[in-house]
Amino acid sequence: MAFLNDALTHARAHKDRHLAEYRELLAMPSISTLPENKADVERTAEWLAQQLRDLRMEKVSIMPTDCHPVVYGEWLKAPGKPTILIYGHYDVQPVDPLDEWESDPFGAEIRGDYVFARGASDMKGQIFAQLKAMESIAAQGDYPVNVKYLLEGEEEIGSPSLPDFIDSHKELLACDAVLNCDSGIQDKDTPAIIYSLRGLAYFELELRSAEKDLHSGMFGGAVRNPLHVMAELVAALHDADGRVTLPGFYEKVRPLADDERELLQRVPYDEAEWLTMAGATACFGEAGYSTVERIGARPTLEVNGMWGGFTGEGAKTVLPARAHAKISARLVADQDPDAIEGQFRVFLEQHVAEGVTWSLHQHSSGPGSTMDRTSIYMKAAGDALETVYGKQPVFRREGGSVPIVGLLQDKLGVDSVMLGFALPDDGIHGPNERQYIPGFYRGIETYIHYLDLLGR
Amino acid sequence: MAFLNDALTHARAHKDRHLAEYRELLAMPSISTLPENKADVERTAEWLAQQLRDLRMEKVSIMPTDCHPVVYGEWLKAPGKPTILIYGHYDVQPVDPLDEWESDPFGAEIRGDYVFARGASDMKGQIFAQLKAMESIAAQGDYPVNVKYLLEGEEEIGSPSLPDFIDSHKELLACDAVLNCDSGIQDKDTPAIIYSLRGLAYFELELRSAEKDLHSGMFGGAVRNPLHVMAELVAALHDADGRVTLPGFYEKVRPLADDERELLQRVPYDEAEWLTMAGATACFGEAGYSTVERIGARPTLEVNGMWGGFTGEGAKTVLPARAHAKISARLVADQDPDAIEGQFRVFLEQHVAEGVTWSLHQHSSGPGSTMDRTSIYMKAAGDALETVYGKQPVFRREGGSVPIVGLLQDKLGVDSVMLGFALPDDGIHGPNERQYIPGFYRGIETYIHYLDLLGR
Repeated sequence: MAFLNDALTHARAHKDRHLAEYRELLAMPSISTLPENKADVERTAEWLAQQLRDLRMEKVSIMPTDCHPVVYGEWLKAPGKPTILIYGHYDVQPVDPLDEWESDPFGAEIRGDYVFARGASDMKGQIFAQLKAMESIAAQGDYPVNVKYLLEGEEEIGSPSLPDFIDSHKELLACDAVLNCDSGIQDKDTPAIIYSLRGLAYFELELRSAEKDLHSGMFGGAVRNPLHVMAELVAALHDADGRVTLPGFYEKVRPLADDERELLQRVPYDEAEWLTMAGATACFGEAGYSTVERIGARPTLEVNGMWGGFTGEGAKTVLPARAHAKISARLVADQDPDAIEGQFRVFLEQHVAEGVTWSLHQHSSGPGSTMDRTSIYMKAAGDALETVYGKQPVFRREGGSVPIVGLLQDKLGVDSVMLGFALPDDGIHGPNERQYIPGFYRGIETYIHYLDLLGR
Repeated sequence: MAFLNDALTHARAHKDRHLAEYRELLAMPSISTLPENKADVERTAEWLAQQLRDLRMEKVSIMPTDCHPVVYGEWLKAPGKPTILIYGHYDVQPVDPLDEWESDPFGAEIRGDYVFARGASDMKGQIFAQLKAMESIAAQGDYPVNVKYLLEGEEEIGSPSLPDFIDSHKELLACDAVLNCDSGIQDKDTPAIIYSLRGLAYFELELRSAEKDLHSGMFGGAVRNPLHVMAELVAALHDADGRVTLPGFYEKVRPLADDERELLQRVPYDEAEWLTMAGATACFGEAGYSTVERIGARPTLEVNGMWGGFTGEGAKTVLPARAHAKISARLVADQDPDAIEGQFRVFLEQHVAEGVTWSLHQHSSGPGSTMDRTSIYMKAAGDALETVYGKQPVFRREGGSVPIVGLLQDKLGVDSVMLGFALPDDGIHGPNERQYIPGFYRGIETYIHYLDLLGR
């Protein structure tokens, strides 16, 4: 198209400014789970709304929800062309353990080819590359397709108010396809397209055995210790084959077909390299499946946090009255998070020892989803990646959760194309999260090509 | 003896002042495990040294150790009479969870018949009652026996420097018997004498599976989760019969003889009442033993604290790199704490999963001990209690640890008489610790009678 080369030239000419603006975005601590960062989340929303106005989007607004606001904007002046809903989230995870960060999580320090910050890769780098692709096109004239923006501020806490928001704005959000930028590639030089995402069901469990903490000498060995009971429960959540023991957990899981197992075998994977990236020394998981399959195609269950009793320095001979755990399951398509909660409750009824009471709370949830690998929107993404990276993308399943994908499939009947440039070793959700800066620039160019291809 | 009635009259006449001074002692937050309270610990030592000077003790001194100081004083002007070493500790446990206290832990608030404070029962109330018994006798003239005071400031952290202190002051501490005030009775109106104490071996265990915390979607289900491994370890520490599985744990444990089981059956015990006191709903412990036996005569192992991963509010989908636990065993006579550490290391070598590294640290330890129930010092204690309470004391084993008893048995060859007035429901080590004030006064009178009987 007419704009393509000029847009690419614009993107290359404004690299430094784009990086500087990206770092401005990274400096805002938009941690959605912490009440003390609420104002930062709002400030980030305003900053992005201004970006959309600068892109000549219309109806730009910060739409309140019961939780954090949605930033919306649209440009619908390409009659006969498809309408693409561009999705991103502007919130980030907390930063603890803070003492393991080598630089300020919101300092956006550049070291070598990387910028280090909470949210650099997940996903401010991705959504901002898309915005800068739009700027590069807008500098040449009109957009080649119709676009709408849906930028949420609560993805990292499970998007509690997004289902209702979508339900009550179905017309506003109506589109032909979703471009979801919350995604990544295989490695620096190997593009990838994710066609399946896992869902999430996140729980908090409390056990209680006594009214107050007791002296371990006077009561130890004669009443239940809730930490022992918690340990027994957690140990019982997997069997010797690494399978989750919640009753019915695998009932709805689609078995992997032979042709898909073959496709997944083509995903580049080197065990030693993968372990180095994980900082671990051994693989472990469900028997009968490869690491790639375990992460992408099988549901899993992990304890994300566990605590109780005396956790300070030194020794205290206490028999605690309570034990706590945060436990989450990653789900595959067709598993229902609410059904998992039901299974968990049955498990607890069967397993919690006499003398101990329990309560279970579901923090957040979202279904898994699998997309059509042959749509025109998927094909354009593959071609754009091939143009910029010089090779065809790997098709793979992702172990993480992007609940919005399942929600939009369910509520609007549209598939999402996952197109983002995060790398597997960016350290998202952990200390020293980073974004590979050349990948950020390639992202801008890929998004330009993608919009060009969709408009032809 | 000549002084007895006058001393009792003195004690009764000065009740209010004794209580006021006791509350002054309770107001000092002498928490030995917290570095920030070091000055408070020292201040408490000075305050007690002044009490000893007021009692006309000689050689009163605050003797430094590698940890907290020992307060010493002696009066040796009763030739031909026994020498009694009076033991107490002036340090206290931390106060967390602070929000479960109904009044300031160092406010020493009086509500009804109780004074509420950290250390009120464990053991400032007991040692202070003994000091006020001494005051009541001193007001009449000389003491009926020779006395030495050994008041330590690190009992609640396992008395790390006391073994060396005793070794290097064997002559100074030489005595015929120890009066250990760190003890309690059966209930408000039923005196008791403890003739056996459990030892302690307190460990901290760290597991590590990765260099840093990981994203549970990208890595969950494919590498070891140290919280799962910790849960499996803790679950494996007991078998289905509630027995500890450390290899060789029970090897040195003396089986309970039939006559002693019979004696222990005489210890008043009402399950419903005991559970109410514990704030629990069910008993649980080693199969084949009663609650009284489980607590006093059998070794036990409890997790005192456990933590790892995300423990804040809300949800964070992290796969933690590390897991921690504080785990302590209560030991009976003849079990060696260092041998327990060896058993723990063998257990970990056998049980820790591939891909996980562990480290084990022993915080503190002390042996258990069993005393001669027929000595003249034990008999005098029984008679003093019977005089004040109007009934014979119960003889029982105690589940808690008073490591000094084993140390003095081992190093000086002397038995201790456990004579103190704490109640089982005083809530020691927990929130709202309290001392029954009438028991404090009865304690003063009992100590007066005890010294009188020893001097005859």
